[in-house]
Amino acid sequence: MEKTCIDALPLTMNSSEKQEIVCIFGTGDFGRSLGLKMLQCGYSIVFGSRNPQKNNLLPNGAEVLSYSEAAKKSDIIIIAIHREHYDFLTELTEVLNGKILVDISNNLKINQYPESNAEYLAQLVPGAHVVKAFNTISAWALQSGALDASRQVFVCGNDSKAKQRVMDIVRNLGLTPMDQGSLTAAKEIEKYPLQLFPMWRFPFYLSAVLCIFLFFYCVIRDVIYPYVYEKKDNTFRMAISIPNRVFPITALTLLALVYLPGVIAAILQLYRGTKYRRFPDWLDHWMLCRKQLGLLALGFAFLHVLYTLVIPIRYYVRWRSGNLTVTQAILKKENPFSTSSAWLSDSYVALGILGFFLFVLLGITSLPSVSNAVNWREFRFVQSKLGYLTLILCTAHTLVYGGKRFLSPSNLKWYLPAAYVLGLIIPCTVLVIKFVLIMPCVDNTLTRIRQGWERNSKH
Amino acid sequence: MEKTCIDALPLTMNSSEKQEIVCIFGTGDFGRSLGLKMLQCGYSIVFGSRNPQKNNLLPNGAEVLSYSEAAKKSDIIIIAIHREHYDFLTELTEVLNGKILVDISNNLKINQYPESNAEYLAQLVPGAHVVKAFNTISAWALQSGALDASRQVFVCGNDSKAKQRVMDIVRNLGLTPMDQGSLTAAKEIEKYPLQLFPMWRFPFYLSAVLCIFLFFYCVIRDVIYPYVYEKKDNTFRMAISIPNRVFPITALTLLALVYLPGVIAAILQLYRGTKYRRFPDWLDHWMLCRKQLGLLALGFAFLHVLYTLVIPIRYYVRWRSGNLTVTQAILKKENPFSTSSAWLSDSYVALGILGFFLFVLLGITSLPSVSNAVNWREFRFVQSKLGYLTLILCTAHTLVYGGKRFLSPSNLKWYLPAAYVLGLIIPCTVLVIKFVLIMPCVDNTLTRIRQGWERNSKH
Amino acid sequence: MEKTCIDALPLTMNSSEKQEIVCIFGTGDFGRSLGLKMLQCGYSIVFGSRNPQKNNLLPNGAEVLSYSEAAKKSDIIIIAIHREHYDFLTELTEVLNGKILVDISNNLKINQYPESNAEYLAQLVPGAHVVKAFNTISAWALQSGALDASRQVFVCGNDSKAKQRVMDIVRNLGLTPMDQGSLTAAKEIEKYPLQLFPMWRFPFYLSAVLCIFLFFYCVIRDVIYPYVYEKKDNTFRMAISIPNRVFPITALTLLALVYLPGVIAAILQLYRGTKYRRFPDWLDHWMLCRKQLGLLALGFAFLHVLYTLVIPIRYYVRWRSGNLTVTQAILKKENPFSTSSAWLSDSYVALGILGFFLFVLLGITSLPSVSNAVNWREFRFVQSKLGYLTLILCTAHTLVYGGKRFLSPSNLKWYLPAAYVLGLIIPCTVLVIKFVLIMPCVDNTLTRIRQGWERNSKH
Repeated sequence: MEKTCIDALPLTMNSSEKQEIVCIFGTGDFGRSLGLKMLQCGYSIVFGSRNPQKNNLLPNGAEVLSYSEAAKKSDIIIIAIHREHYDFLTELTEVLNGKILVDISNNLKINQYPESNAEYLAQLVPGAHVVKAFNTISAWALQSGALDASRQVFVCGNDSKAKQRVMDIVRNLGLTPMDQGSLTAAKEIEKYPLQLFPMWRFPFYLSAVLCIFLFFYCVIRDVIYPYVYEKKDNTFRMAISIPNRVFPITALTLLALVYLPGVIAAILQLYRGTKYRRFPDWLDHWMLCRKQLGLLALGFAFLHVLYTLVIPIRYYVRWRSGNLTVTQAILKKENPFSTSSAWLSDSYVALGILGFFLFVLLGITSLPSVSNAVNWREFRFVQSKLGYLTLILCTAHTLVYGGKRFLSPSNLKWYLPAAYVLGLIIPCTVLVIKFVLIMPCVDNTLTRIRQGWERNSKH
Repeated sequence: MEKTCIDALPLTMNSSEKQEIVCIFGTGDFGRSLGLKMLQCGYSIVFGSRNPQKNNLLPNGAEVLSYSEAAKKSDIIIIAIHREHYDFLTELTEVLNGKILVDISNNLKINQYPESNAEYLAQLVPGAHVVKAFNTISAWALQSGALDASRQVFVCGNDSKAKQRVMDIVRNLGLTPMDQGSLTAAKEIEKYPLQLFPMWRFPFYLSAVLCIFLFFYCVIRDVIYPYVYEKKDNTFRMAISIPNRVFPITALTLLALVYLPGVIAAILQLYRGTKYRRFPDWLDHWMLCRKQLGLLALGFAFLHVLYTLVIPIRYYVRWRSGNLTVTQAILKKENPFSTSSAWLSDSYVALGILGFFLFVLLGITSLPSVSNAVNWREFRFVQSKLGYLTLILCTAHTLVYGGKRFLSPSNLKWYLPAAYVLGLIIPCTVLVIKFVLIMPCVDNTLTRIRQGWERNSKH
Repeated sequence: MEKTCIDALPLTMNSSEKQEIVCIFGTGDFGRSLGLKMLQCGYSIVFGSRNPQKNNLLPNGAEVLSYSEAAKKSDIIIIAIHREHYDFLTELTEVLNGKILVDISNNLKINQYPESNAEYLAQLVPGAHVVKAFNTISAWALQSGALDASRQVFVCGNDSKAKQRVMDIVRNLGLTPMDQGSLTAAKEIEKYPLQLFPMWRFPFYLSAVLCIFLFFYCVIRDVIYPYVYEKKDNTFRMAISIPNRVFPITALTLLALVYLPGVIAAILQLYRGTKYRRFPDWLDHWMLCRKQLGLLALGFAFLHVLYTLVIPIRYYVRWRSGNLTVTQAILKKENPFSTSSAWLSDSYVALGILGFFLFVLLGITSLPSVSNAVNWREFRFVQSKLGYLTLILCTAHTLVYGGKRFLSPSNLKWYLPAAYVLGLIIPCTVLVIKFVLIMPCVDNTLTRIRQGWERNSKH
């Protein structure tokens, strides 16, 4: 429910309760935006400033005083100052004693300082109750009210009463406070707004490299090769035909890479005979970005579907089939119907559709709100059972597509096999290993290890 | 996790703790539904009524007493009475003193009264702790248990202990309490259930008008014109061909209208040389419904995709291409292959697919649960960077579609250009202005202004 | 925001505050995993064990003592023991007096015991504050950090302070505590992780049965019949043609079954003249799984769309249309254009697209995060108004598809009508009854009943 303070304004005016006074240290942009917003929401604001005289930009209705005077006015003080200038607060320790200091600061880059700004502030002013908040909200969004991004304000602090006070203010500004526990959480909270899809970076680059490689591979086979030998200009294939080879292969490979780390982990555990030794970091990191890999794979699969469905609309396709029919008509011969081809074409299309359907299901269940609504057992069921079924269907789809002309020498150009052959390597490997792993004998050992049993232990 | 009280019932029976007594004033429909539900969840209920005798509809197990007697029985009293009849409570002030009054009332229309019902109640019975709750839940849903809509119960009140008590009850009924802060939030909470997609209204009407206008525009060009000049009956085009012109144009225009206000705002800020002056209201409102505009645009784009993909299935298309081939065959001539046409058709299709793909991505990130999981920086990146890329791709898609025959006089019918030409006006304008705005010189000034700098200030 | 304790570790080290000591009873797998995780998050752990000597698997840094000694060390004790072995705790009652006992146990099957494990524990150790938590988290996920499934930890307990302490620990482990109220909620919390899509079971089996039946029905008409009479091998139709008959019919039937119970309920209420009598259980259960029925229907509709869009790509279709043209060319005759066929084909396709579009909208609004963002009125509007519109469009789509050859005897094979005729039975019934129900006279009575009025009452 969006609570727009513009409506709240008159309300708080005629409401009997006396207005709460909040003090803001610093008259920078964020300080002013926050002050304006709080004024609109019926708070009365006192700004603390180095030189209270020359501040002509402050929202009307706000008072400006020296730091110490301002601090005296209220027991909640928002520190809208960069960490670099915190040190002057040490002179105010006795004034700030027992007050609530709200640290809203952010750094320019992650891990800029050993400890979080909020904890640094707490060390400077031991007497005060430091609460971290508001650092995830942008000043611009606060003013424009365009808070689509996220109304969540992460709040943490060691004094629960102080935290509660701040969370009430957050609510009154129409934002959603999220209690993150003690002040040790400040480190994470300060890291949060600086991130730009950290988990997506590796999967993204990986798929980008895959795409580019496959693109040139196909260009060589489908454009350069025919040009060299038949002087045919196939460049137009680069718009649709070739992407429609690149995307499905990338999708299938990425999907297989989602399940490869799990398989490797199982082998490691079997080999070590215990689950109590950490996996190598690369494996850990890989496992943590499986979701992103899967979603990227889904994206490429989606593109593949669209590229495939537009085939009959393409000029080239219409021209070719048209001419084909014309020549047949001229030669007065109908071409016979081959049931096997019908089976082949229909079944590989059907496999593809079913695979894509399950894939979309997987994607939907990975939506935060959906995955929060299912329990662990259900999630495992969907992600591993349905996930493997998807992988099997998509691999089968590619295999049947290959059909007879699979690895037939006629299909090699400059000794390069068709691209889809490359796309099958990883998926098949994963499926074969997985098949071995679910053999009862292997599976039992693995299950016992995962339940805590250790091979070389006195248990 | 859905907590069905039917299961909870036996549980609370054999549970040692004595049942909590809750009093409900008023035996109307919602009062009874709520009472029944609370009985099922193991509370014991006392109804307060004007005439305790003639109440034969109450759920079994509930006691009925006069208001004052009922009030004495419990320290939580749910006021299931219309605001109009609150005044009788003034006589009970001493009985209600220190008790928790739960205001569950709703009004018939927004802003019916100066102050919210809950605050009105608080004024009537100053001694009581008023808590607003349950007004967003429908009586019918409460009984049938079909609470798919929303299990959220917005709770607000000035006394935090009282609020906590009420929130516990809400939880025990299997609902999710949402603390909205002090009683001043009641105004918003009461407004909430009366709304019907307020943010969607303007975008919806706008797109409706657009569609209708474009529909008739196309009817004139593609149905009436050929009928007048060639006596051809093209009415059947109104089912698919024409909608498939109307939808993409509407989609593109709406998408452009998502980014137009941002551009206008930038110009305004540049012109004013400050960001501390409010935008005109129409611009504010426009900016706040950008998300809805974008989602509507996505809807139309989705329809356009479906309408395009079914083209080869249509009887008319099959008939035409079939006849074309037949005539060619009869004339014994194959039509030559034109690489340029192949390029044109393939590239405009590819552009469309990529544009649509990014568009779907934008739509997914605007899902509440997804946008809550990204931070401000990530959201800005997706919505502005990817958003503009989408706009560029879709505009290019239309331009290439236009291809050579763009604005060629032969294409004018009754001096009316093809519809897609109209569709290009706003997108191109937006892109051109945006291009100017990201020129370093302009961009720097804008950035400084947005960081709080002001042109005509002593800073 | 994902809070990875690996980062938190150094932080908590150099943080001044002394580490909180937590005691864990039981050195089983989950106990160890939880201990390890808590160590990583900067807690110091004491394990309580039957024989503290022989425990060589515990994470380094953790202390192991006898139960009583361990209990003395901390005031929070996590009971990582199966319910079967709780009884030994009775000997420790005086040590555990006033301490917080965290019950993390799960049972093997639902309703294994009369009361929940947490409540059983509370009865065994009356002096302690029992809090239920952590039972929804898997040990493996806790270690690997792969908590995609759900970071939600449901917490309940009668002592709010104890609950708060536990919720803080949950937060510090990077999980999201969900306060579920008093200990009576434990029953539900313990049931939760054992469920596997309980609400989906009935809809799933229902649609499976439907699909299988329709599949064989179509096989008889389209494969066996032509084989018997024309010796034609149509088996390849089983890959796409027949599924593309089965899926739409299943989808339409399921969609109709979403609205049938509402209609039945209305009739029942009209017949009984009251809303205060419970519906029969089968109807209640049916009403509660409407959402699942609808989503399954959407799934089948989605498959139908894909199967339809690939039609022109299929070898069989290309072959047939190609030969058709060839024969025409040989016979030198063009087939004339029939406007009516154009209308028929275009309009039934258009109806289908619009129906599917609305259907997707319904699906999106049923996403938890979306349905939480709309109020009851909006949800009703979407689900009932748009829902019925979808049903009407899809039924019309099927009717127009039937077109003229609807029930024409030539279309009967072995007296079996075409499959789509079967698919129309339930939808049409629902729509007809609904049409009767919204007749003013009937509607008024129904509305009054739903507002609490009763026919045979003194009101």
